[in-house]
Amino acid sequence: MKPAQLEPFHAIAVSRQAHALKAQGRSIIHMEFGQPSTGAPSTAIARAHQVLDADPMGYWDSTPLKARLAQHYQERYEIAIDPARFILTCGASPALVLALSSMFSPGQRVALARPGYVAYRNTLKALHLEPVEIACGPDTGYQLTAAALAVLEPAPAGVIIASPANPTGTIIAAGELAAIADVCRARDIRIISDEIYHGLSYIEPAQTMLAYAPDALVVSSFSKYFSMAGWRLGWLLAPADHVERAWAYCGNLFLTAPSLSQHAALAAFDAPDELAGHLEVYRENRRLLLAALPGLGLDAIAPPDGAFYIYANVGHLTDDSLAFCQRLLNDTGVATAPGIDFDPVDGGRFVRFSFAVSTAEIIDAIGRLQPWFAAQPRRA
Amino acid sequence: MKPAQLEPFHAIAVSRQAHALKAQGRSIIHMEFGQPSTGAPSTAIARAHQVLDADPMGYWDSTPLKARLAQHYQERYEIAIDPARFILTCGASPALVLALSSMFSPGQRVALARPGYVAYRNTLKALHLEPVEIACGPDTGYQLTAAALAVLEPAPAGVIIASPANPTGTIIAAGELAAIADVCRARDIRIISDEIYHGLSYIEPAQTMLAYAPDALVVSSFSKYFSMAGWRLGWLLAPADHVERAWAYCGNLFLTAPSLSQHAALAAFDAPDELAGHLEVYRENRRLLLAALPGLGLDAIAPPDGAFYIYANVGHLTDDSLAFCQRLLNDTGVATAPGIDFDPVDGGRFVRFSFAVSTAEIIDAIGRLQPWFAAQPRRA
Repeated sequence: MKPAQLEPFHAIAVSRQAHALKAQGRSIIHMEFGQPSTGAPSTAIARAHQVLDADPMGYWDSTPLKARLAQHYQERYEIAIDPARFILTCGASPALVLALSSMFSPGQRVALARPGYVAYRNTLKALHLEPVEIACGPDTGYQLTAAALAVLEPAPAGVIIASPANPTGTIIAAGELAAIADVCRARDIRIISDEIYHGLSYIEPAQTMLAYAPDALVVSSFSKYFSMAGWRLGWLLAPADHVERAWAYCGNLFLTAPSLSQHAALAAFDAPDELAGHLEVYRENRRLLLAALPGLGLDAIAPPDGAFYIYANVGHLTDDSLAFCQRLLNDTGVATAPGIDFDPVDGGRFVRFSFAVSTAEIIDAIGRLQPWFAAQPRRA
Repeated sequence: MKPAQLEPFHAIAVSRQAHALKAQGRSIIHMEFGQPSTGAPSTAIARAHQVLDADPMGYWDSTPLKARLAQHYQERYEIAIDPARFILTCGASPALVLALSSMFSPGQRVALARPGYVAYRNTLKALHLEPVEIACGPDTGYQLTAAALAVLEPAPAGVIIASPANPTGTIIAAGELAAIADVCRARDIRIISDEIYHGLSYIEPAQTMLAYAPDALVVSSFSKYFSMAGWRLGWLLAPADHVERAWAYCGNLFLTAPSLSQHAALAAFDAPDELAGHLEVYRENRRLLLAALPGLGLDAIAPPDGAFYIYANVGHLTDDSLAFCQRLLNDTGVATAPGIDFDPVDGGRFVRFSFAVSTAEIIDAIGRLQPWFAAQPRRA
């Protein structure tokens, strides 16, 4: 075995180009990354100001925050969680590293949907686990199904479920989540459920996998719904019989999460109206985009049930999504993410739009996209 | 291979007991952890207040901070570093994970000193690398030597060097660092140098391993000298030919470091007098402890050249350092770290005192320790 050679995020190349153009005076609309353009809730900011002046901020692991998270699971999902099962991390990314490294060992196979968030595949590779990518298309909303997991041979040691998903925003219906849990129980497949986009739903709310698979490891964070991406605070919710091991991994690999972020996140729960307001902005942005996309010739999209993404098939225009995104950016100032970040096989024919920007920017972007797409030649 | 079963930090058990006693109204002096009791520099706090009100804080990787770090290496070590070689992380811990995972692969052997920081051994195990512990005693200041690395068979793939070290505070002299670099070059051993305690020296300043081994991977952070432990900001300084790979690992495993901490850390460089003041407090604390320890019967200690630790041999009193620390805490309110956290073989006969507290607390602690140690029976 050698250290894995990981693919870089190509969206970062697009973003760098965007910033370079901006430095030249161009007007840029950043739809390439999945980060809210809003800041943290005002209650979180206010609490941070207080703590900055009052607390020397050593290493800290917030018991009040874990209790509040448990209350959150009770309120949102009606599930009782022992607060000790939460392991606070510097964002969802290290929570995924904790889940995978503490649960699996080199050579084991872990299934995941393709398309999917690029870090799943790469983190598995970095930990010398074998990603087993299951091609998912429009017939299943680009999502894994119980049926696909039932016939995968040999059964993998684990599976990563993401609902709402990145890059598609699709949500796995509650009945299908239950069926996936059943198959995984029967085949002894451990579920890692990435629930980072929970709270951002435009159809029915996403249900937690814990409702169906109590032994699942759940990864989440304050980055999306709570609009606190740069605060780097997430959590791993581990099953009771795995908490001690995962906790030992966390202490050694990562130590603690940022103290100020833990204080602020606790206060973020006190701003439900602001957070609901963000969701309404995304809902309006989504409505505007969905209304405009057919006019751009983009009618093959995954149903954007949640998160703030639209994953659009641009296969009639290109099979090189990176070059396509770069040209789109250069011509219009609209930055997007190339599908190859999410799907190394078919992603050359897809583009991901993030609509976590302001509604004014969405309207501006649509105005720029319309003439550009109208002028694009169809592939021969 | 299975996921490694990692030892927990026993100092955490001592700390929990300390907090429980405090809740009962007892007066506690926290000398169990290596964290400054001072807060971040006032310039960092002021900048954080500004940013909180002005910046929505999305994912961010600070170019100005990397440039300032490069300037810092020029000023402190007179070494020119390309700012692009800094990878910002959520503390030194994930920087070590990045270094080890991007450089080595399962089954490879990595040498390290025993005693040493417990997370070295455990992070190696978690990544399925093989820790090769080299017993280091008082004759070498509990530090690795070129001579020890020259005769280690077979040659390991890597070695972790720590100077100033945890738990001893000992510094490897510049000449020995150069000799270690020579041996590692000759034997193709990659050096990981943990320089987190740099800036905290009571003899000559610690030199960076980069002065002798330009291809070393350096791990450091703002937690100790800059007194910003809870801000969770560190860096990996990677060789030019390894930066791209390490960067890809960082993006996938961790994404970015906390945005506010990056802003604040840049401003922390503007408070050299405050930081020098902290060092003077530690210097006085160290002087008081060194004067008092012989009177406690603790004359076998590692030379505390740097950091803020004293690693004392208490073998005449116990061979169960955890029980010893718990009894000491219960009787006196002084919390310390048991040697078994740092040395699974001989650590039962050692205790680590952290003197990163106030001088008033050090004086108070000495007053409590004197009668207690005087009353301890020698082992049969």
